[in-house]
Amino acid sequence: MLAVPKIDLKKTVKEISYFIRGVVEDANALGVVIGLSGGVDSSLTAALCVQALGRSKVLGIMMPTNFTPREDLEDARELAEQLEIETIIINISDICGSLFMALKADQLDAEQKISMGNVRARVRMIILYYYSNTRNYLVAGTSDRSEALIGYFTKYGDGGADFYPNIHLYKTQVRELAKYMGVPERISYKPSSPQLYPRHKAIDEIPVDYDKLDPILVGLFDRRISSKETSQLASIPIKIVEEVLSRFNKSKHKRSFPSMVKGWELD
Amino acid sequence: MLAVPKIDLKKTVKEISYFIRGVVEDANALGVVIGLSGGVDSSLTAALCVQALGRSKVLGIMMPTNFTPREDLEDARELAEQLEIETIIINISDICGSLFMALKADQLDAEQKISMGNVRARVRMIILYYYSNTRNYLVAGTSDRSEALIGYFTKYGDGGADFYPNIHLYKTQVRELAKYMGVPERISYKPSSPQLYPRHKAIDEIPVDYDKLDPILVGLFDRRISSKETSQLASIPIKIVEEVLSRFNKSKHKRSFPSMVKGWELD
Repeated sequence: MLAVPKIDLKKTVKEISYFIRGVVEDANALGVVIGLSGGVDSSLTAALCVQALGRSKVLGIMMPTNFTPREDLEDARELAEQLEIETIIINISDICGSLFMALKADQLDAEQKISMGNVRARVRMIILYYYSNTRNYLVAGTSDRSEALIGYFTKYGDGGADFYPNIHLYKTQVRELAKYMGVPERISYKPSSPQLYPRHKAIDEIPVDYDKLDPILVGLFDRRISSKETSQLASIPIKIVEEVLSRFNKSKHKRSFPSMVKGWELD
Repeated sequence: MLAVPKIDLKKTVKEISYFIRGVVEDANALGVVIGLSGGVDSSLTAALCVQALGRSKVLGIMMPTNFTPREDLEDARELAEQLEIETIIINISDICGSLFMALKADQLDAEQKISMGNVRARVRMIILYYYSNTRNYLVAGTSDRSEALIGYFTKYGDGGADFYPNIHLYKTQVRELAKYMGVPERISYKPSSPQLYPRHKAIDEIPVDYDKLDPILVGLFDRRISSKETSQLASIPIKIVEEVLSRFNKSKHKRSFPSMVKGWELD
């Protein structure tokens, strides 16, 4: 059996709060800004930032498109109300429209559709950094360990942030911690949907859903056992484990500083 | 005396070409895309990529605004013609306009003006990555060591790239290498002007011009001597050396992967 470790919820919140306060203090920043999607990752991030810094230092930005499901926006709004944080709503469809026009991008072309999704994620990063720049706030990243290890995020899009409070937690742990932090269960256990294009669901793009993916990642990256052993212990076909490992390898560039001529360093 | 080391031009070109080919091969990419500004950094980057990969694998994107000096666009165009590479021109003013409208950003507010400049740099990143995504190309970063060490670039803007061919070379070395590579002298020795907002010149924002900055950086980061000794050997007031060191420290976050809770790694 390969199980995702149970985390000590209280201790984890304490650790993350300490981390958030340290990052903000070290940067002499006045607060943090977070993109709120109505999903579990950004909801937990917001709840943890409020816990660490107080609600007056947390700004939530909702950035729907014209095709964002109404429930997601409502969930984001409800969470922000529950946390009593300041929010700003910016619909990004017109901004993306002017980009797509200049790029002659066509939603009907399958490859362009994905690239257009990345444009949307990066436009959101620009908006978050605009508020970060003008208010001297840091941008809180919302990625979790499951997404990060398989590279399931947009480089310089949702991957573009100043710090990652939850990136050491697997998606299944994020859900549990979110529930513990009082994030509504509807959000905490909602299926993952990046919504970078209409009807965009994580399950269509990741090798296997998170409840099966997480044990594979525990085998490969925490226990550091072989693909074969991981496959056996997790009762998952070897093909899927190998696909997960391949995603990890192919996405290394998304988890590190861009490469430079060997032998040189920037310090 | 603190002098910037003379580089072996031929050997440097060979080393960088080897690096570029390696990065592209490792990523199974089909070529590289570069934002061409008409400045020395992007011109050298383009020349080196053509040298390493051949002109058919290099795409140059020119992304002027309505206030970009005509000479810069002409210089970029001339360089692309000289290198015989494919180019695309996209004026980013309308795209930035729709962002500024949504952000209620006002050019007349001094702080917003700088934040708006960062928006422009990030819009250019989005465009480069759109072509990177649709063509399976890598984005070549154009930063040099002088800018990188003092953090004089936009995080996730011009700093958003897949690899940096010139980031180990000081600006004064970049100028020399550019000349050697046949980049027109008008480009190679043009004063640095990011042009992120109208009349934007590097010299108004960096502590001292590159011919004096580079020896300071050599003292602090290559020879690793104290600020005081650097000041004496470079015959530069200690205040300026300390300002350079302070810029380095404050910009550390721009040269590393975003921070996460201590003790965790993403591998």
